[in-house]
Amino acid sequence: MSTLSFKCYVEVPAGSLDNNKADIDRLNHAITEIAGVPHIEWPLGLILEAASVLRETAGKVTVAGSIVRETLIVCGIEPGDTSRRNYGIAVDIGTTVVAVELIDLITGESLATFGEVNGQAGYGEDLLTRLHFAGQSCSETLTGVLRATINGLIEQACASAGISPTEVMAVAVAGNTSMAHFFLGLNPAVMRFEPYIPSINHIPRLRAKDVSLITSPNATVYVFPSVGGYFGGDLISGAIASGIAGGEGVSLLLDIGTNVEAILGNKEWMVAIAGSAGPALEAGVADCARRAEPGAIERATIDPATFEPTYSAIAGAPAYGFCGSGLIDLVAQLYLSGLLDPTGRFVLDKKTARWREINGRMSYVLAEGANGQTPTYITEKDIHNLLTTKAAMIAATTILINSVGVALEDIEHIYTAGSFGIHIDVDSATTIGLYPKLPKERFITLGNGSLAGARAILLDAERIAEAEHIADTITYLELNVHPEFMDIFRSARYI
Amino acid sequence: MSTLSFKCYVEVPAGSLDNNKADIDRLNHAITEIAGVPHIEWPLGLILEAASVLRETAGKVTVAGSIVRETLIVCGIEPGDTSRRNYGIAVDIGTTVVAVELIDLITGESLATFGEVNGQAGYGEDLLTRLHFAGQSCSETLTGVLRATINGLIEQACASAGISPTEVMAVAVAGNTSMAHFFLGLNPAVMRFEPYIPSINHIPRLRAKDVSLITSPNATVYVFPSVGGYFGGDLISGAIASGIAGGEGVSLLLDIGTNVEAILGNKEWMVAIAGSAGPALEAGVADCARRAEPGAIERATIDPATFEPTYSAIAGAPAYGFCGSGLIDLVAQLYLSGLLDPTGRFVLDKKTARWREINGRMSYVLAEGANGQTPTYITEKDIHNLLTTKAAMIAATTILINSVGVALEDIEHIYTAGSFGIHIDVDSATTIGLYPKLPKERFITLGNGSLAGARAILLDAERIAEAEHIADTITYLELNVHPEFMDIFRSARYI
Repeated sequence: MSTLSFKCYVEVPAGSLDNNKADIDRLNHAITEIAGVPHIEWPLGLILEAASVLRETAGKVTVAGSIVRETLIVCGIEPGDTSRRNYGIAVDIGTTVVAVELIDLITGESLATFGEVNGQAGYGEDLLTRLHFAGQSCSETLTGVLRATINGLIEQACASAGISPTEVMAVAVAGNTSMAHFFLGLNPAVMRFEPYIPSINHIPRLRAKDVSLITSPNATVYVFPSVGGYFGGDLISGAIASGIAGGEGVSLLLDIGTNVEAILGNKEWMVAIAGSAGPALEAGVADCARRAEPGAIERATIDPATFEPTYSAIAGAPAYGFCGSGLIDLVAQLYLSGLLDPTGRFVLDKKTARWREINGRMSYVLAEGANGQTPTYITEKDIHNLLTTKAAMIAATTILINSVGVALEDIEHIYTAGSFGIHIDVDSATTIGLYPKLPKERFITLGNGSLAGARAILLDAERIAEAEHIADTITYLELNVHPEFMDIFRSARYI
Repeated sequence: MSTLSFKCYVEVPAGSLDNNKADIDRLNHAITEIAGVPHIEWPLGLILEAASVLRETAGKVTVAGSIVRETLIVCGIEPGDTSRRNYGIAVDIGTTVVAVELIDLITGESLATFGEVNGQAGYGEDLLTRLHFAGQSCSETLTGVLRATINGLIEQACASAGISPTEVMAVAVAGNTSMAHFFLGLNPAVMRFEPYIPSINHIPRLRAKDVSLITSPNATVYVFPSVGGYFGGDLISGAIASGIAGGEGVSLLLDIGTNVEAILGNKEWMVAIAGSAGPALEAGVADCARRAEPGAIERATIDPATFEPTYSAIAGAPAYGFCGSGLIDLVAQLYLSGLLDPTGRFVLDKKTARWREINGRMSYVLAEGANGQTPTYITEKDIHNLLTTKAAMIAATTILINSVGVALEDIEHIYTAGSFGIHIDVDSATTIGLYPKLPKERFITLGNGSLAGARAILLDAERIAEAEHIADTITYLELNVHPEFMDIFRSARYI
């Protein structure tokens, strides 16, 4: 098991009239023996550095490298023994939020995690707006702000851990197909039109300077492969985090956001489906929807006798709005308490002071606004959006299961990924049908699976082969054009 | 047999809902099949180009690539079918003169050859002066002027053939160890001191932009490996040109300039020797020494009865000065006509009007100056210098032969390289002992062997393995520190 970049300290024997091999040739001999590969690849800039460093230190140097197939690609050379300082950065490029995690590649420890709104948000909240903007020859702008967001996070993470960004020799990046394109400097606008085909899925190993990162300029950069326009490296990364491709039994990986993405499989086969799911779970769609941050309501219950709610907000902060898990709890509780019928309509016959007309729409008020602020409420429209997402999810799962002829109850584990998957209550999600009805203990929360997969690659570069293999062999279905989709979707729009 | 860069025109099948592989992934599939290698490597810049070109041409593109081990490294992508326009540049970086040859890699034809004084000459005629200058943190300056000389020649060669430098996708570079260092941007000044060790001998494959060439920026650049400070890639290149490493019989390769360089061997073993030989054959050392250019005397005879000379000058131009071959003819003829004794002293007892005191030194006048210009003459000092070179040459050959126990007469071919080796008369050279006494038909003139070897690599990239193998396995002896050197050298200073 080798980390994505590793370091080796060597003491290159001095040249002499008897051993008159050139300096770098003697160094190469020493490090390829340690790395156990026959070939070595240097960028010219590092050769120039190596020539001086070798002379200045009388051959006592630390080389950072990464193995690509049979070749050690050199990422850096430093004077003296720095072999215990080896750092990697995992990056998850979300359309909404970008997250970066700094890993100590010697201890495996996570030193810092930082997240921030993707700088592209200033050019459009949603992806389609950005793709439209990119299509008007503005793709470079979006590449620039995205890289600036990542660099800002790398700077924060490194500063918080007291290391210099130039000590980072390895970067693993997971993002959806469009974000991977933007990161590379490719214009993803081409994917808006049939046949919705990306420019590239399998991305060659890059150097940090190619993509303007502030890490060590020759740090190795691995970008997860995509499978199609709707199926990106973030999901492949999630699959790596789950270990689904290594299991004997069949497991299911669900990632729900603006898109529904699902993978079903084991170590022998994998099948995936993806498509748009409606915007229900994105912050900003419902009046009161928020990201999972302090103050967002993440848990809710409704007393079936009094119809009065109780709730808890993240970090115990003054409650305003709900994140995805709060929304799912609320809808499940409305249904269980009889305030909501299976078609998603309020049962207004049941009397409670919580029914209130807000902005001309009948609403159920979950929380009064503190200090005279607007209350947190939900409308039938919000519920309709959630049920649309759920219907897409059910369609996705059903099509996957039918395509391979597995029985639902044979699914060993259900991994849930996505930033709000962390907080979702499995009972609530199965109540409304967002998650399949299976024993609770089979559900495993990955949290940010995309970031976790990137971290896994940093710590074990051999799993790159697994990621590339998944992307190569997975059977991928487009949810929205699948012939069964509409039938299942229509009948699944009820609780 | 594959040229150093080759091109393939492909029509990448359009993407569809059924074949929804990404554009570049479909292209990769097509070209790795054609190239017959499993892997492909793209620089990011070319990926960005490919993404647009593929869309604009509906997949009709020409890809230029070069194979390094099992990997096709992409050097360029062009719209449409440009597969019949594929050009390479061979470069010989001499300390004195830089030569460039433009090759049509489709037909194998040489389209243009241009040579020019190495721009570094402005910082010192000889290498030691330049190394001293480089040692004073001025190495970058010397790298810059050298690259400028090469670029100027590439520009001239391409202009004369009516192609754009950016159509050049492959460059093969041969130069001595110091010149290779300067070319890469490495400071060779370190080699001035014991143990005289270069920074690098085996140079990884480069891209043109790394070394600021005006060819296609991603053109592949192969630089011949060196073996030691005095034994550079120019000699390895000469060995490639001679084919000495492929022969059954034993052959000898001689390269004489400021240094004596010699290789002896066959396909099973090779042994080489190099060392400084004195400046006799460099232009500018003798008063009348010139480069082999129009007007330089290249042939001379002396009538043994009248002691009157006849001569011919290059290109029939008005004669002034002599190049290396003229000098060797002249000394051989002086000796054969009895005007010179075996110790290199003039026999002034023999009376002729050609004896004349010039600048306070007794001289033999070969040619009167046309239109009142200075005559072309030779002094005992010039002869002494030549005999020093010849003694070094004999020492080199003798040590080589003794080291492997081959008899002189068993040498099948003697290849002579170096810019003035082209014109040397074998009889004259054997008369004075510069060349070993062997039948004339065994001598083969390579001309600029260094340039010829670079051309050979451009036309057959598989010979790179041969070049690297020679550099790896050759037994290399330092002439000037060899224990036998002084004895042989002393006794060989006579004709």
